[in-house]
Order: sequence, then C-alpha cells, then structure tokens
Amino acid sequence: MPANGQGNVATDEVEVYSDTLGSSSDEETAYLKQSLNRTFTACFASNEKQSTFESLPSRRDHETFFRECIEILLKEAVFEGTSRRNKVLNFQQPEKLMEIFDFKLQNDPSTHSELVKKLKDIIKYSVKTGHPYFVNQLFSSVDPYGFVGQLLTDALNPSAYTYEVAPLIILMEETVLKEMREIVGWTSGEGDGIFCPGGSIANGYAISCARHYYFPDVKAKGLRSLPNLILFTSEDAHYSIKKLASFLGLGTENVYLVNTEANGKMDAGHLEELIGAAIKNDGKPFLVSATAGTTVIGAFDPIDKIADICQKHKLWLHVDAAWGGGALMSKKHRTLLKGIERADSVTWNPHKLLTAPQQCSTFLVRHKNLLADAHSANASYLFQKDKFYDTQYDTGDKHIQCGRKADVLKFWFMWKAKGTKGLESHVDKVFETARYFYETIKTRPGFEIVVPEPECTNICFWYLPESIRTSSSEEFCQKLTSDKEFREKLHLVAPKIKEKMMKEGTMMVTYQTHKDKPNFFRIVFQNSGLDKNDMLHLVQEFERLGQDL
Amino acid sequence: MPANGQGNVATDEVEVYSDTLGSSSDEETAYLKQSLNRTFTACFASNEKQSTFESLPSRRDHETFFRECIEILLKEAVFEGTSRRNKVLNFQQPEKLMEIFDFKLQNDPSTHSELVKKLKDIIKYSVKTGHPYFVNQLFSSVDPYGFVGQLLTDALNPSAYTYEVAPLIILMEETVLKEMREIVGWTSGEGDGIFCPGGSIANGYAISCARHYYFPDVKAKGLRSLPNLILFTSEDAHYSIKKLASFLGLGTENVYLVNTEANGKMDAGHLEELIGAAIKNDGKPFLVSATAGTTVIGAFDPIDKIADICQKHKLWLHVDAAWGGGALMSKKHRTLLKGIERADSVTWNPHKLLTAPQQCSTFLVRHKNLLADAHSANASYLFQKDKFYDTQYDTGDKHIQCGRKADVLKFWFMWKAKGTKGLESHVDKVFETARYFYETIKTRPGFEIVVPEPECTNICFWYLPESIRTSSSEEFCQKLTSDKEFREKLHLVAPKIKEKMMKEGTMMVTYQTHKDKPNFFRIVFQNSGLDKNDMLHLVQEFERLGQDL
Repeated sequence: MPANGQGNVATDEVEVYSDTLGSSSDEETAYLKQSLNRTFTACFASNEKQSTFESLPSRRDHETFFRECIEILLKEAVFEGTSRRNKVLNFQQPEKLMEIFDFKLQNDPSTHSELVKKLKDIIKYSVKTGHPYFVNQLFSSVDPYGFVGQLLTDALNPSAYTYEVAPLIILMEETVLKEMREIVGWTSGEGDGIFCPGGSIANGYAISCARHYYFPDVKAKGLRSLPNLILFTSEDAHYSIKKLASFLGLGTENVYLVNTEANGKMDAGHLEELIGAAIKNDGKPFLVSATAGTTVIGAFDPIDKIADICQKHKLWLHVDAAWGGGALMSKKHRTLLKGIERADSVTWNPHKLLTAPQQCSTFLVRHKNLLADAHSANASYLFQKDKFYDTQYDTGDKHIQCGRKADVLKFWFMWKAKGTKGLESHVDKVFETARYFYETIKTRPGFEIVVPEPECTNICFWYLPESIRTSSSEEFCQKLTSDKEFREKLHLVAPKIKEKMMKEGTMMVTYQTHKDKPNFFRIVFQNSGLDKNDMLHLVQEFERLGQDL
Repeated sequence: MPANGQGNVATDEVEVYSDTLGSSSDEETAYLKQSLNRTFTACFASNEKQSTFESLPSRRDHETFFRECIEILLKEAVFEGTSRRNKVLNFQQPEKLMEIFDFKLQNDPSTHSELVKKLKDIIKYSVKTGHPYFVNQLFSSVDPYGFVGQLLTDALNPSAYTYEVAPLIILMEETVLKEMREIVGWTSGEGDGIFCPGGSIANGYAISCARHYYFPDVKAKGLRSLPNLILFTSEDAHYSIKKLASFLGLGTENVYLVNTEANGKMDAGHLEELIGAAIKNDGKPFLVSATAGTTVIGAFDPIDKIADICQKHKLWLHVDAAWGGGALMSKKHRTLLKGIERADSVTWNPHKLLTAPQQCSTFLVRHKNLLADAHSANASYLFQKDKFYDTQYDTGDKHIQCGRKADVLKFWFMWKAKGTKGLESHVDKVFETARYFYETIKTRPGFEIVVPEPECTNICFWYLPESIRTSSSEEFCQKLTSDKEFREKLHLVAPKIKEKMMKEGTMMVTYQTHKDKPNFFRIVFQNSGLDKNDMLHLVQEFERLGQDL
C-alpha cells in the first residue's frame, strides 16, 4: 500500500476508534460515516482528493500502519532498547551505514511495508540512549512519566508563545519555573524564567540579561555604544560561555578564563586578579559565570566566595548549573551549590540529572521583567493588546524564539507523578551509585583515579591494561608526571578501549584529555535504576575490553 | 497505585512484551525473570530499591498505565482532536483554568488514576492545533508520518551532536539539508546547513554568518573592533530580524526597515536609498534580509531585484523563507521565490507550509565551512579528534547549541513516505484551497479584502456585521479612508468575533492591525485535508458569529 503520492487511492487517514462512533439509527450511521470520512481527510494532511466512503479499507490500512509503528517503537526502541540483554548500539562506520541504510529521498512515495522496514532499521542502528550502560553523556535513561508527557506534547503539537494557543503550557511553565526559583532559594515569586532549547542558549540569555541590566541602551544601540565588556568563567566551564559570548558579539577574547584548582573548582583568588587585569586593560567586567557541576570533572565552583567578589565589584553572578542543578532537589546534596541563592541568574537543565526527555533546559533570573525588557519586540500580529483575556499570559515575547516547542509538559508530568520527594530520592540514588562505582575502582587493580573524592556523579579514571600496569598508585603518579613514553602509551588506551566497546556495543563511556592529563575515561550516572551489580558489570567490562592491549 | 516516592512498592517499570521473553527451560525462565526484573529497573529511572520478582504485579500496573495513556492521547488528542465534530478548543480564562486544573507540584507522588485524569484534562483544555479549523497560525494539522517520526525520535531520545551518539540523525541531517539546498537551486553539494530551534534563531545564524564572512575577527574580538554594521529588511519582515540583531549585539537601531508596497513586497528603490543613507551615516551595510512569505500578508519580496542591489553593494543576501519556503517544492508556485538561488543564506521551516511537527526549522548557507568557522569551539571533551571514525561527521560544533533535540527524523520520514511528489501535491492543494477561499469571500456580502490577489495561503479580510455593512466595496474603501467613526467601529469587530469564536471553540483565526489598517482577520491554510465544504463552513461561521454585532 503506497503511503501517498499521485494516483494512489490511499489517503493519509487513520481509523477513528470505533467506540467513539457508536450510533443508534441508520441516519445517524450515515452521518457518522460521512463525518468520519471527512475527519480522516482533515485529520492528516493529504494530497488526495477527498476519499469516498468506499475507500474505507485503505483507511484501515493506514490505522494498521500507524499502530504497527507505535508497537514497534515501544517494543524495539523503548523496552528492548533499555534491556541489559541487548546491546547499547550496533556500530557502523559512516560509509558503511550509508551503504546499508537508504537515506536518499526519492520522488515517489514509499509503501507502508517499506516504511515499517525503515522504522526497524532506524531503531537497529540508533544508539540506545536509554540503555543502562549508556553512561557516555550528561543525559541518559527513559523516564516513563517524562516519556508519556513527551508523547502528549507531540500529540497536541503546541507552539508555546501565547495563552491563546497554549493555555496549559503557559501556566505550567510559570508554575514549574516559580517552583524552581524557590528551590534555588529566591524568595517566593521573585524573578522570572524561561524554557530554552538547551543550556548553551540559556547561558546566552544570562549574558544578554546581564548586559541589558547594566546597559539597557544595548538593545537599541548595540555593543559599539558600550565599554569593552568582559566576562569571567573558569577554564573548566562549558564551552558554551565562549561560544555564546561570541555569538552575542562580545568576542571570545573578552571571556577571561579563571584557573581551576586540582579538584576542578574555580580559583577565586585568580578571579580577583583577572578582574583587576581587565580593568587595567580598559575592560568593563560585568559578569561571572560560576559552574555547578563541570562537564568533565563534575566540580562545583565555590559560589559563596565568588558571590562575595561579584558583590564587591558589582558584577552579575550567573551559575551554570545545567548539569549539577538537579542536586538542589536533595536535602543531602544541595549544599554543593551553597550560595546559589545569591546568583542573579541560573541555568538548570532537568533533562540532565533529573532525566527529563531531551530537551528540557531552563534559564532562571532573579530580576523580574528583565527578560521581557531585554528581548521583547511587541509584534502586533502575535501579541495583540486588545485580546479578551489578560495578555500578561502571552509570555512568548521574552524569548528570542518565536515558534517554540513546549518542553515543560513532560517535566511537569514527571514531577506531578513522582512528587518532589520522588525527584529527591532519584538524585540521592544516583549519587550513591556513583559513589559505589568510585569506591569499587579506587582499590581495584588497573584503575587509577583522576580526581579523588568526586562531588558529582561524574567519575574520571584511567584504565591500565596489564602491559603498562604499575604496581602501585604511587608508581603510577610518578610515571604519569615523568615518564613520557608511559604517558604516550596511556594516552592511546582510552580511544582503543572506546573503539572496542563501540564495535561490540556493550556499553558507552566517553574519554577526553584535561589540562596536561592524557586521555582518561569519564563515566556519568543519571539512571537511578542502576544497581551494584551494574557497577561490577561495568568495571569488569573495562577489564575484559582492556585485557589484550 | 502511587506513581512513585518513598515507601511505595511500585517502581517506574513497564512490562516488557511477553513475546520477547519466550523461554524453554526452567533455568532459562528464572534467568529471564531476573533479567526482566533488572531490565525494568534500569529501563526507567526509579527511586526505589530494586524490586524483587514478587513485585511483578506492580510492574504490570505500570505497563497498564503506560498503554492506557498512549491510547488516551491517540484517541482524545489525535483522532478526536482533529475531528470536525469536535471543538477546536475549550476556552477558559487564565484565572478560571488555575482554579479547575491543579497545576501545583506537591511533595508526594500522584497515583496512576490521578495522572490519567490529569492527562485527560490536559487534552481537554488544550487547543487542538491539528484541527481543520485551527487556521490561526503559520502551522497546523497533524501529518501521520511526521507524527510517527516524532514519536520515534522521542523513543530514541538522541542528542544531535556527534556521530557516536546519533549516527543516523547526523547522516539524515546531511541528506535532507543537501536536498533542500538543491531545491533552493544551489549546485549539487554546495554549501552547508543546520536544523535550528525555530526560524528566529535561523535568522540569527544568518546575521552571525554574514558578519563572520566579511569580518572574521568578530569571533575573537567582538563587534567593538568592527565598523557600525547595518542590516536591512522590510517593515513587513518577521520581528525576529530585529530581535536577533539585538541579541547578537548589533542593536535594533541598526536594522533599517525598508518600505513595502501596498501588496506587501519590499520596495527595492527604497532599499537603495536606505543603503545610501546608512553609508552617509558612517554605517557599514552588510546584509539584506528579503522575506519569502511575510507573516501577515504572505508577500514575496522581489528577490532578483534585491539580489542585484546586494551584488552591486557587496552585501550578504539572506532570504527568510521560513513560511514561504515550502512553495519551492511546487513546480507551479516556486516562481514566487525566483532569484532565491542567488541568496547567500536561507531560512526555511518545514514545520510551516510542509506541516512537519513542531519544531522543524532549517538554516541553509551557500558558503561551505562558514558555519563551523563562525561557531566552532573545539571542546576536547565532546569533539575528540582521535576517534576511530571520520570525525567530520561530528557536526555539532557548527551549532550554537550543544545538546540538541533531533528535528530531522520526522521530516525525513514524511519525505520518504510521500516522496517529493507527495510534498508537491500537498503544496499545490493548499494554494488551491486558499485561492478558493479568497474567490468565495471576494464576492460575498460582508467580506472585504485587505490585499487583493494574495500570493501565499494567507488571506486577509475584514468582516462587516450588518450594523456597519456598506453597500459596495467602493463605499467601503471610501469610508475606510475618511470615516473615523466607521474605522473605529470596524477596528472593534475582529477582537469581538475572535472572542466569540474562542469561547464557542468552533474555529481559530487570528486578527491584527497592519500599518494604518484597523483590525482585520488573517486566515492561513497549511492543511491539505481541507476541502471546499470547509471553506464554506468557515465563511458561514464568520457570518454566524458576526451577525449580532
């Protein structure tokens, strides 16, 4: 049955549930059939002339197709995709994948059976990011409530700009963002916030808000009318600070990188020095971005100390808690972010530590109206002021986006399902898991820790195959600092093990260099379904993959 | 059954399909049960200690819940939500909605039955943007193939930055973007492109690429090292040009607004004048953004004429075809964008005229490597160069986002399903529909056309209730220009009819002012399932709603 296209009888229609069509008379039946027929036609974009009742069988084909796809994706992508019995991925080199999977877009429609085959292949060759052994990035796992919320969002397909078009979404956003601001520690109702397409853009909003706060002329006149603005973040901060500073016209050279200490935390003394240097160079310091949970090490900058410095120099304090923000949900771990209530703005991504589906990022700001003042354009064709409801609920104009995917519903639904308590338990569990993994490898032969006493759920380590194994951690440290050949060999180990794990598909853990350190692994835990057996499994998997190197 | 939280036996687990668990021996059964148990636990983030086999019933409850939710959302949000028999919306004032829907996030988990109730209420109070009579915005309708592609994306939950994590997504993006560039008219393989979170940000990329093209120093040194950059767009262009120019540090004052003619097209003569004026003011013109399909009128700027001017003054030509780009799929209608092949960059949103689900926006650029040159940050922890595959497929660094929702899959799947032909037929159909609506109201008493001979599928018109109806279009035009009281009365009509239609929920059509024109309606067609009966229904609905005013 062809999907669509010229000359086909099949239209893009799906059978309505029969129980919505119960009828009691012949006349009613006829009406319903006709109505049903039109429903199908309009329900889904169709390039066919309106089908007649006689073509109902093709409609049934379409519903069959539709339901078949959903069953396959639930079964193969969700349930089997998250099963330990199955592989995390089925790796193919790009050239090979282009050979075995037909990406090409053609002129004619595909048949439903071709599409079902495609769907299965897409699942087959996709990385299962919900798999328990996908511990490669700062996101993972599938939350069933988040997933339901996401599917519901897709079924409703709203654009989150006006109350008129997205009433529940707008009110949910305000509810969730207010709750998050309270958890940050700002007094009830203080401030504002938005959902953003990712933490990088949230960090961009911080820069935009800060410069507008000090120099509101920037909106109309641009940066050339301002002094040379300088911002500060640590050398371990996420690359988006530099990237967005550049996008916003400030230039990467005006992002001063503050040294971090061995544990990955910003050196507050060096921050003071750099502020002094910037002023000396005719620069105008205006913002410090502290990080709560750095990307590689998972370090938490000393926010209180940094807040003191910001206060002294009248600088905007932004906290990039995209990764570590989830710890705020835990009474036990929120002390890691002590001082965050003194921040002017915060980036916090619930799609990371709290496992909301991609993408769920927030930007929170302590200053009310600032987002709107900095970004509003008052388009008369979208934000009409003569509407019959209170237009303060048309919140879209404080965003730089116009049309916007609604990212709140999935998170609101998760939160409603689990309660704040449930989110807290989740966070406590993943910290416990990470700690157990750390304790396990600390004393295990062949594993060497990169940063002792990790604060977050990132654990950084080297794995040493027998061929370069040292007899003690002391010897390892000594060789690491002074034995060039050893360092070079060690540097090659992680990419080699990574290649093997990807090709076998048994797990995914990332590696990287950091400062002068040769390649090491960083494993990250967000999935509170992992247990001690999993930790042992992951450890043993490193041993197995590394044994012949 | 509570969803989660302290002290519950229920964990966030879903029953795996029984057919994946067929086993042949007791031992195997035991293994599978245990494995199944662990699968569930890890499959979904759970805050419980690992459940034992004895708690299987609770797992079954969870699967029941999961499937129940999916059935409800398909039935109530998709099928019933797109049925002409049902309302487009169930409007409630914000204050009332806060009363009847419990938005509040609480400490304790919710039960599954509470969540199901919530789900139903969310659907009930949401606008059905897939409904045939949702003709309010530049998006609408539900494409079944796009919807399947969206659900699949959610099931796989990728982040589109590296080949390692999103192999198929990366290759699909390259395939679709290359195909779109060829349709724009750039020679095979020329240029580059990205998927963006909306057309506004795509327009931001155009500004960023253009300034980097002429002044590559901007990346490191910022705008203060550059001349005073000036860009040009028409007064009818989308507000995002100004908004993003401001976000990128250029300032709204440096966006010069070119006059449009009565038909909404940019006045190329005035563009020349403004370029001269900018240079005289020590400004440095660098970019012109032409619009292909303006937001209100749906006008197409004269791209060829503008391209000549850009060529003469060595300016970057961007075409914002977020809305009208879909017409490129049609041999019949692509002449509206004649000259687009001369553009340096193009914004084109498949989620608009081509009805891909929210959100699917692209930015296409004719200059290869420019996106990467302008935006890359080379983070060593994500874009490692010593990977075992060709890292040119790690395309994430050319974006300003880091983590990124994959917006390509749904569109690729639609395109594969329908073929290029199917997309073309869809476009031809919606243009035909719009034309039919236009022809119908042109001669119908009470309707007056705002812009004759519309080019796109936007139709702008006034509806005149009996109380202010004129006897001819000539009389209407005369009163419109010279009768202040008539204008004032007319201005109040659209908001009043809009209020009635929202409260009754029978359709959604937006209104706005434009230049000196009092409020008028703009209806927009993207749903190729609408037919002539629908056009008559919409016309009659205006007559019904406006009869007592």
